[in-house]
Amino acid sequence: MDESSEVQSLDFDWDRPRRRGFTEAVYCEGKSPDQLREVARQIRDASTDSSLAFLFTRADAPRAAALKEILPDAFHDEQAQFLSWPALPPPVTGTRVVVACAGTSDWKVAREAELTASYMGRETQLIADVGVAGLHRLLSHQETLREAGAIVVVAGMDGALPSVVAGLVEVPVIAVPTSVGYGAAFEGLAALLTMMNSCAAGVAVVNIDNGYGAGVLAAQITSG
Amino acid sequence: MDESSEVQSLDFDWDRPRRRGFTEAVYCEGKSPDQLREVARQIRDASTDSSLAFLFTRADAPRAAALKEILPDAFHDEQAQFLSWPALPPPVTGTRVVVACAGTSDWKVAREAELTASYMGRETQLIADVGVAGLHRLLSHQETLREAGAIVVVAGMDGALPSVVAGLVEVPVIAVPTSVGYGAAFEGLAALLTMMNSCAAGVAVVNIDNGYGAGVLAAQITSG
Amino acid sequence: MDESSEVQSLDFDWDRPRRRGFTEAVYCEGKSPDQLREVARQIRDASTDSSLAFLFTRADAPRAAALKEILPDAFHDEQAQFLSWPALPPPVTGTRVVVACAGTSDWKVAREAELTASYMGRETQLIADVGVAGLHRLLSHQETLREAGAIVVVAGMDGALPSVVAGLVEVPVIAVPTSVGYGAAFEGLAALLTMMNSCAAGVAVVNIDNGYGAGVLAAQITSG
Amino acid sequence: MDESSEVQSLDFDWDRPRRRGFTEAVYCEGKSPDQLREVARQIRDASTDSSLAFLFTRADAPRAAALKEILPDAFHDEQAQFLSWPALPPPVTGTRVVVACAGTSDWKVAREAELTASYMGRETQLIADVGVAGLHRLLSHQETLREAGAIVVVAGMDGALPSVVAGLVEVPVIAVPTSVGYGAAFEGLAALLTMMNSCAAGVAVVNIDNGYGAGVLAAQITSG
Amino acid sequence: MDESSEVQSLDFDWDRPRRRGFTEAVYCEGKSPDQLREVARQIRDASTDSSLAFLFTRADAPRAAALKEILPDAFHDEQAQFLSWPALPPPVTGTRVVVACAGTSDWKVAREAELTASYMGRETQLIADVGVAGLHRLLSHQETLREAGAIVVVAGMDGALPSVVAGLVEVPVIAVPTSVGYGAAFEGLAALLTMMNSCAAGVAVVNIDNGYGAGVLAAQITSG
Amino acid sequence: MDESSEVQSLDFDWDRPRRRGFTEAVYCEGKSPDQLREVARQIRDASTDSSLAFLFTRADAPRAAALKEILPDAFHDEQAQFLSWPALPPPVTGTRVVVACAGTSDWKVAREAELTASYMGRETQLIADVGVAGLHRLLSHQETLREAGAIVVVAGMDGALPSVVAGLVEVPVIAVPTSVGYGAAFEGLAALLTMMNSCAAGVAVVNIDNGYGAGVLAAQITSG
Amino acid sequence: MDESSEVQSLDFDWDRPRRRGFTEAVYCEGKSPDQLREVARQIRDASTDSSLAFLFTRADAPRAAALKEILPDAFHDEQAQFLSWPALPPPVTGTRVVVACAGTSDWKVAREAELTASYMGRETQLIADVGVAGLHRLLSHQETLREAGAIVVVAGMDGALPSVVAGLVEVPVIAVPTSVGYGAAFEGLAALLTMMNSCAAGVAVVNIDNGYGAGVLAAQITSG
Amino acid sequence: MDESSEVQSLDFDWDRPRRRGFTEAVYCEGKSPDQLREVARQIRDASTDSSLAFLFTRADAPRAAALKEILPDAFHDEQAQFLSWPALPPPVTGTRVVVACAGTSDWKVAREAELTASYMGRETQLIADVGVAGLHRLLSHQETLREAGAIVVVAGMDGALPSVVAGLVEVPVIAVPTSVGYGAAFEGLAALLTMMNSCAAGVAVVNIDNGYGAGVLAAQITSG
Repeated sequence: MDESSEVQSLDFDWDRPRRRGFTEAVYCEGKSPDQLREVARQIRDASTDSSLAFLFTRADAPRAAALKEILPDAFHDEQAQFLSWPALPPPVTGTRVVVACAGTSDWKVAREAELTASYMGRETQLIADVGVAGLHRLLSHQETLREAGAIVVVAGMDGALPSVVAGLVEVPVIAVPTSVGYGAAFEGLAALLTMMNSCAAGVAVVNIDNGYGAGVLAAQITSG
Repeated sequence: MDESSEVQSLDFDWDRPRRRGFTEAVYCEGKSPDQLREVARQIRDASTDSSLAFLFTRADAPRAAALKEILPDAFHDEQAQFLSWPALPPPVTGTRVVVACAGTSDWKVAREAELTASYMGRETQLIADVGVAGLHRLLSHQETLREAGAIVVVAGMDGALPSVVAGLVEVPVIAVPTSVGYGAAFEGLAALLTMMNSCAAGVAVVNIDNGYGAGVLAAQITSG
Repeated sequence: MDESSEVQSLDFDWDRPRRRGFTEAVYCEGKSPDQLREVARQIRDASTDSSLAFLFTRADAPRAAALKEILPDAFHDEQAQFLSWPALPPPVTGTRVVVACAGTSDWKVAREAELTASYMGRETQLIADVGVAGLHRLLSHQETLREAGAIVVVAGMDGALPSVVAGLVEVPVIAVPTSVGYGAAFEGLAALLTMMNSCAAGVAVVNIDNGYGAGVLAAQITSG
Repeated sequence: MDESSEVQSLDFDWDRPRRRGFTEAVYCEGKSPDQLREVARQIRDASTDSSLAFLFTRADAPRAAALKEILPDAFHDEQAQFLSWPALPPPVTGTRVVVACAGTSDWKVAREAELTASYMGRETQLIADVGVAGLHRLLSHQETLREAGAIVVVAGMDGALPSVVAGLVEVPVIAVPTSVGYGAAFEGLAALLTMMNSCAAGVAVVNIDNGYGAGVLAAQITSG
Repeated sequence: MDESSEVQSLDFDWDRPRRRGFTEAVYCEGKSPDQLREVARQIRDASTDSSLAFLFTRADAPRAAALKEILPDAFHDEQAQFLSWPALPPPVTGTRVVVACAGTSDWKVAREAELTASYMGRETQLIADVGVAGLHRLLSHQETLREAGAIVVVAGMDGALPSVVAGLVEVPVIAVPTSVGYGAAFEGLAALLTMMNSCAAGVAVVNIDNGYGAGVLAAQITSG
Repeated sequence: MDESSEVQSLDFDWDRPRRRGFTEAVYCEGKSPDQLREVARQIRDASTDSSLAFLFTRADAPRAAALKEILPDAFHDEQAQFLSWPALPPPVTGTRVVVACAGTSDWKVAREAELTASYMGRETQLIADVGVAGLHRLLSHQETLREAGAIVVVAGMDGALPSVVAGLVEVPVIAVPTSVGYGAAFEGLAALLTMMNSCAAGVAVVNIDNGYGAGVLAAQITSG
Repeated sequence: MDESSEVQSLDFDWDRPRRRGFTEAVYCEGKSPDQLREVARQIRDASTDSSLAFLFTRADAPRAAALKEILPDAFHDEQAQFLSWPALPPPVTGTRVVVACAGTSDWKVAREAELTASYMGRETQLIADVGVAGLHRLLSHQETLREAGAIVVVAGMDGALPSVVAGLVEVPVIAVPTSVGYGAAFEGLAALLTMMNSCAAGVAVVNIDNGYGAGVLAAQITSG
Repeated sequence: MDESSEVQSLDFDWDRPRRRGFTEAVYCEGKSPDQLREVARQIRDASTDSSLAFLFTRADAPRAAALKEILPDAFHDEQAQFLSWPALPPPVTGTRVVVACAGTSDWKVAREAELTASYMGRETQLIADVGVAGLHRLLSHQETLREAGAIVVVAGMDGALPSVVAGLVEVPVIAVPTSVGYGAAFEGLAALLTMMNSCAAGVAVVNIDNGYGAGVLAAQITSG
């Protein structure tokens, strides 16, 4: 047994910005406050490029508190469980990312997607309450949707919204199923399958509740 | 071993019209032409109430041919694999059943639903090509949809159409998932789950490809 | 990032009664007491048509308490986690909705269905303890079942009750699988699949534990 | 590589009758006519106890023909795909096995169960067309069901029949789900789950379409 | 809305002993102490046949305490969460039920099966720690297994034990999958599927963790 | 029954290019040669904008032959089952789409993606045989991958390739699971789940074997 | 569109023997005879190290014929659908690989495992007909099993055999689930899950029907 | 009812070291502190061979405390929930076991595998933070990986790491899926399926989070 293996490695992937253009986000769920403080310390001490935002996802209140002990000037959004250091997003470049969702239940995932894109340097806009069961609201936003550089559509339950949105626009649509619903929603599986089978071409899907991943992809698409 | 059990029973449920108001339909899949001829003979010989239609579902061309040997004046729709004896639907009563679907692939299930309702005595109308990826077509039919007594919505792939339709009307909506699609459509499972989780209340779902069941239910709803 | 997106939208779909004939129900699960108070305030301030009931589903005790701070004269049923404002159902119209279930475990879902239909203006009747393992009880209610305008059948575990009920009547049957059971019940999936495959035509299924949806559909069917 | 492994072993478990009271049945599906002829030869040459029936299941017409080349006096039931040598069942002992099913589609599995019990020495009776959607037929057989030593209930689609039967009797009920149905029947999975969750205690389930296994178990139960 | 429906029915199926030979067991999970006290009162007041045991399953410590307030002389087994009133099992009749399991984890389900059979009037024997990974222990019990009237085999994880046991005996084997295990055990699904596919004929399966159902069936089988 | 409903609608969505920037592709699977000839005729007669390519997917040899009767100058790729009319792709605009896959088995899906992007006006490059089990080949293409405007990664079996590719680049990655594999590949489900859970952010997934959808999305992303 | 991409790449991973110690096997399913002839030509022309065997798996009769046109002196086993060039396995090194299975149905997968290990240079032995339903046969092979360097256990249906074997020995056990069975066997899923949950530590599992993968791993384990 | 069955058996399999070369590990989850103290007492009193380590898995802090009351000199690793008595691993024999994982989330499972192999007498090395999304780190460890006797690869989420590792080495690879991830990770199912379908031959899989099983197998493989 190697002695050194008793110390759990938390080495950050410092090479990622060079390869991928953005930093490795820290997924906080399942990490202890101690572990998070250690990561935050590494980031604080090693960061040299102040134009890069370091993002922490699934940072609930106690975990955010631990991070803020080390990075007191970080930005934290409690509903989206999203923390960024430094607190200000980088200057806006590229085209606009629009995030659409059906209501309050999907809001926190939509917000995570929006904040991620914002902290990767995009202008963003979040449209809430545009569910398929009330088309008139969605149709009133057609102009905004058509002018976006990329659209993230967040939906739980029947997951039908991305098909409807993609049918209206020329823009790439990233669909995010959420675990909102009950019974045969199977914690987002129903929405995920719906979205994989979208009648409208030009829709791609990320993991259930993965607002972060959708935000990254939307920011990459709109970087030009 | 009981000798009599070597003869496979095909006894018809003659009591059903009294209890349920319609005859037992014969599901032809998995039955041999010989078995179907035997059933047809029983029906021909025993039927006394000429106002009741006897329906045969999943009657493909060879099975329909076998049935027509015994019931030569029956009506057969090849695409819907639907056969009725006698050939004419009963006089129209109740309110109108509208059947909506997204395209040619779902058409045969939609048609089975329409024919079933028609042969149970309803006025029917089938609207095809009203998919969610092209809302303008659906919206142009709003008047027709709102004036129906019940709507059957047939959809495969993402199964999103019933949610959108139900959001537009006061009428009961019966959703029929179809096995149309591939990959993560899982032979209709994706559409079934979508429909079970419809954001719009007032939607109920029947089995995958079960146009017959949807037609029966729609006819019952509109019987008043 | 759009500033306005930091305020989570809770806009009510005020157009729904015109389109669909009933108000948008508020699904309380996953909403905070603060959010519910805000919704209640909007409803209280904007409601002009006192004949429309506003329904809140999955309103457990603490959520109902929050709502009653704003709508003190609301009706709340604790077992069904159902709240209505105003407290009195509208005058009865249409035909009667009968709700049937097998026992105490399914009772709260059955009650949610019954209350929903009642607050949409229907006469209702709830028959409990009519499981398939004791047919004599079910058969003693045949008269009541046959005279209904629509029947909601609620069942968990084997989900066999809707097939048996539908085999006895001419009336549309709405089946509600419940998450009652354990092991291979898979939280209602077994009952859901059973009901989708009902041997009796004229059965349609709503989501697991979705008493509300079944009540809406039953009320729509019996509105005539 | 061991030379001897190039010859595929087909050694019969000759010890089984001593341990288990019945011979190893030969499952013919997936075996070539050559392999079956070889098995038949071993059985013909080694059998000494003429009171033991050797059973071959899933023996379709061509496979049965191959077996009959070696065992020309065997009994074959084409629908049940069941072959026995010798042709006559052993003398009847124990109590009666009743097999019940809902219709022609489940008949071949029911027949396999009945023949298996019969060739293990039981008196048997097969009741067909007793589906849950027409209770009156089932209720007319109550006397027969109550007097059985064990009941095998075969059902596809909603799989609801075993719950209803078990609710009427004191007798052990063996439930056999069948792959009859389509869509959400998922080739028998829906019926299997229904049966596992039977509201009536005293029901146990065998594999989908496993009439043979149900017949063996019923014969064991009624051997006393 | 029917006023009477506000009172939740808890009517006991008093006809069951006549039809089925044993009383309706009360499944306590999901019932409140108040509801259980009410059921207990009905049973205490109505019971006239002291030879019938009333069984309560899934009766954890607080629920058992509530029941004992009304039925102070009941028998309770805490691990099996099993309560019987009266406390003494009926006189032994029929043949012996043997229950086998692999270890301490499956013990409580095995014990529920044993107690159920015992309170239905059977002699019982429980053999623990006979897993497939240590065949020598199982083989040392062969005599006991062969002499049983029926065997209940309880197993989680790989669920392999029933196949091995059934391969050794002539006796009916009832298999009970348990939710013991983790990961790909999928809360008993893996064991359930294994048991449905047993290589040894004469095995039937009850629901996951359903020791009660296995005990009832074993008692029925051995009643003769 | 509406007479007109007996004619199956095949109306083309002529409005789509205005809304979405590309024409509705015709999914040929499940359509008869007669139906396809009818669609082709409509397209031939109505097309006015020669810069728009009409695409037909899943056009196997007999279906392509039927289409070519009407559109004799169309382009057909037999392996990709892809047909375009007119035969020449539009002039190249935007940035380059790179398609990567692991071997001959995934090639036809990769080719469908490449052809789709090409006929939507993009420069394309297909890199085959870059599986994760031989990293050296993949690493030798790093330059090409990094310079793409979007990358489509096609993989069956373990579906691991998109994670590895996305870890190397700043570019949006569209992952296409394929049904290549056997056993626990579950016809592409394993690869789909792998891709949904990619460790590398910036990956989105389309349906199993949906090379067309991936090509559309990649072309949309690179249109700028 | 890159012209060169119209030629489907079939480049062999010539670097694999250096990295992994064995050649890349060619999985023939889904490859056309033309493609296989092309692969065979590349191998024939480029092979320089006559001590390395090139293996082709899932090579049914027509595919083997195509390969033998180019490599006429290859070895082909029709049942195992296994082809090797050159025909003779390399000299035996390492310890012995024992392959065990329950009967004729699993034999072809077992044989593929045995041949793979043999052509990677191991002494092998195949034991057939050692199912869990007849323990005496398995126990008679204990000596052979204990003396192996690694054991491959192949089983379908209940998949219980690996647990029993691993409980008897100190040797690594590789379990191969097969698609043998029907109904709830779900094409090998039941056996796969059983094996993942083996009560005996020291068992690892490969894909359903993957005799080749098991043979490679067993040969690697026994190489020392 | 057998009186003795009221005492739950906890008999240890003392024969296992003779048969299998290592002791039966005690899986602590689901066992009460009382039960664990009893097991510990049996082990302490009966152990005679001080060279055999007794292992306890899933021993969280309270369970470890109970065990240490009886075995005060035991070794406990809190993160891996692993306890051994005696505290020192046996002398090192065989070749080295390398354990690789992608990060802090999978660390505790990797550590359990490492400790298990160590206490079975192997030299071990744990490499953390070698995920597929940052290949450079993995490639920097190639030398270590190639020189191992066996490699355990632990991965959650997309589970892609074992394919990549196995593609680089000649050594047997044991893959351990973990329940790390969310949404479509389905608690490790996605990673499990990925690993079962590994493109690289020579990979076998153990249960989700089963570090112990992987450690045992790796130690068996490297014992030579």
